[in-house]
Amino acid sequence: MKILTVIDSMKGSLTSQEANAIVADSFREETLFVEEVAIADGGEGTVAAFLSNLKGERIVERCHNLYGKKMMGTYGWIPSQKLAIIETAETCGIHLLDGTEQTHPENTHSFGLAEQILSAMNKGAKKIIVGLGGTGTIDGGIGVLHGLGVRFLDSLGKIVEPVPKNFHKIRQFDASNLVTGLEQIEFVIAADVASKIIGDTGAVYMFGQQKGLLAEEMPDFENKMTNYSQVLLEGTNSEKGDGAAGGIGLALRRIVNARMCSGLELLAQYSSLEDKIKHADLVITGEGMIDSQSMQGKVPVGIAHIAQKYHKPVIAFVGSVQGDPEDFKQHGLSVIIPLIDQITTLEEAMLNAKDNLKRVATRTKATLLLLSNEARR
Amino acid sequence: MKILTVIDSMKGSLTSQEANAIVADSFREETLFVEEVAIADGGEGTVAAFLSNLKGERIVERCHNLYGKKMMGTYGWIPSQKLAIIETAETCGIHLLDGTEQTHPENTHSFGLAEQILSAMNKGAKKIIVGLGGTGTIDGGIGVLHGLGVRFLDSLGKIVEPVPKNFHKIRQFDASNLVTGLEQIEFVIAADVASKIIGDTGAVYMFGQQKGLLAEEMPDFENKMTNYSQVLLEGTNSEKGDGAAGGIGLALRRIVNARMCSGLELLAQYSSLEDKIKHADLVITGEGMIDSQSMQGKVPVGIAHIAQKYHKPVIAFVGSVQGDPEDFKQHGLSVIIPLIDQITTLEEAMLNAKDNLKRVATRTKATLLLLSNEARR
Repeated sequence: MKILTVIDSMKGSLTSQEANAIVADSFREETLFVEEVAIADGGEGTVAAFLSNLKGERIVERCHNLYGKKMMGTYGWIPSQKLAIIETAETCGIHLLDGTEQTHPENTHSFGLAEQILSAMNKGAKKIIVGLGGTGTIDGGIGVLHGLGVRFLDSLGKIVEPVPKNFHKIRQFDASNLVTGLEQIEFVIAADVASKIIGDTGAVYMFGQQKGLLAEEMPDFENKMTNYSQVLLEGTNSEKGDGAAGGIGLALRRIVNARMCSGLELLAQYSSLEDKIKHADLVITGEGMIDSQSMQGKVPVGIAHIAQKYHKPVIAFVGSVQGDPEDFKQHGLSVIIPLIDQITTLEEAMLNAKDNLKRVATRTKATLLLLSNEARR
Repeated sequence: MKILTVIDSMKGSLTSQEANAIVADSFREETLFVEEVAIADGGEGTVAAFLSNLKGERIVERCHNLYGKKMMGTYGWIPSQKLAIIETAETCGIHLLDGTEQTHPENTHSFGLAEQILSAMNKGAKKIIVGLGGTGTIDGGIGVLHGLGVRFLDSLGKIVEPVPKNFHKIRQFDASNLVTGLEQIEFVIAADVASKIIGDTGAVYMFGQQKGLLAEEMPDFENKMTNYSQVLLEGTNSEKGDGAAGGIGLALRRIVNARMCSGLELLAQYSSLEDKIKHADLVITGEGMIDSQSMQGKVPVGIAHIAQKYHKPVIAFVGSVQGDPEDFKQHGLSVIIPLIDQITTLEEAMLNAKDNLKRVATRTKATLLLLSNEARR
């Protein structure tokens, strides 16, 4: 029997690879062949997921973080495909915020992302996947664009220092000195955020608070972002995804013609996921939380939709679940199995996620095989 | 496929019949034949379990409770077998204790049990099963014996009032006026308690506290019980089970030659359990709590031991479980499935036992059948 594990990370507890490994170890035996496919949504873990599915290496190079401090930045490199995978969270991550003035959204920027892109170009990259998600910046991508050679000018034609606090001064941009060779690179952005740049569900109002923007600062910040984005949009409309990663989505779409993809779609494509599902007898997926009311964009649902095409049963191990099992079944999720199986608190459950997943996976395997003759004796 | 459900009661939440019905309803469908066997350990629920497995009736008659108050007492009657099933908990139940002097163990007695036995004899009983367990008395069965015609005498040959506070006065007993016909009745006591009458694990020290005996009262009570039991034992040794139901075990063994059986054994015998297990494809059992360190006498373990003989897989639904799954497996319990599957408290879990069991049973069925072809589409 062939089993495929494609479990999403359980935020705060387990990475996708860890979760896959625990389940695979619990299931694997002489007559059970288990294959693991790591998955990520474009945020933290995207590089690790690609590197666990494809033969590649971690490139570590000096660059700058979101407030200009030198750091050693890592990205993924798949030599055979001349493919680089960069996470915006690496240089612009929300974990870098420290509550001080220097990490206030008015001052932080995505310049480090440009440094990693240039590094990948130096290695000969033909394609660059930029995983958006987990960023602490709301700079509309002005940092990365500046790093790639774009200049933003004020009403006098003077170059504006590329940070959000200066957005209101910008009147035009000059992309004539873009880094050479950029136009030959295929950019793909991996994001699960459908926000446009402006508005209630945009980069400022939707994500500002978690990045340190106070409620009373939002109207002014939104005004500045409106001015900046109008310059960049040149009269066109903002699209879904523009608001991802504090607006880096907009910048890469407009200037390097980046195409947006969901993290799952991308990893599915690069790991031949559909083909693997087609040849599996059972697909095991999972997620930290799932709710039958909000299944859009959830990894297990995406996996189950593919599995449905080939009539493959799907089990999902889920930290917490809400909703009617029938709703899940209609989406191809045959059985949802919660990881909680004793009196516990949420904190304890997250802390013991590894043991819990192992115990529940072992029990599920025993149940699955209970009525098959080979397991009877 | 044939499935047999034999789930023990989950104390404070579900009776055996309720638990069986929930699981059976969750499993039953066109191709799944489910049979339910109710089970009890001799305590509360024994009559109900027998009546759910055998064609019989509930007999309700006037009698007296453990402090002499009139009550309507119920027992089970299986006309075809001239079999009566009486629970000591009915007239002597621990639920009748009210903390007042009248329900102090010095004053309570098992006279009501004799009334129910006499009633069954009037109906023509050939066999009487007495389920011990859940009693609030520690009267060494003096009440039931008195009711059946035995008299206890002091050093002057005077009849002693049959309550424990007078145990120290007793010097001999007179069974010459036993109720006529008793000797032709087969008595079986159903108990899962292996206590002898006296000692640390006896009727007084082991069970006294829960029946309202204070720690400082124990030595005196034990002395009195020692005197009473020595008279009844007539120089023989106390046996395991004598300490069950506050010593009713001893009284029925000595005077009506009662044979002791575990509740499970008895129900197994009367419900043709072994034969049903032999013809089932899957056995489902369960229990409120199970611990790999103390599996002795637990219903699921007894069921699993029978199932092991016929190489039948066994699933146990358990409110709470402690211990290594491998330990359970060695006893024939293939998979133990806890009823908790979300963040909850013990109180909440017990309150929602019905919904929890239904949800977990439904999920287990789906998992069990996931890899079989008929369930695939």
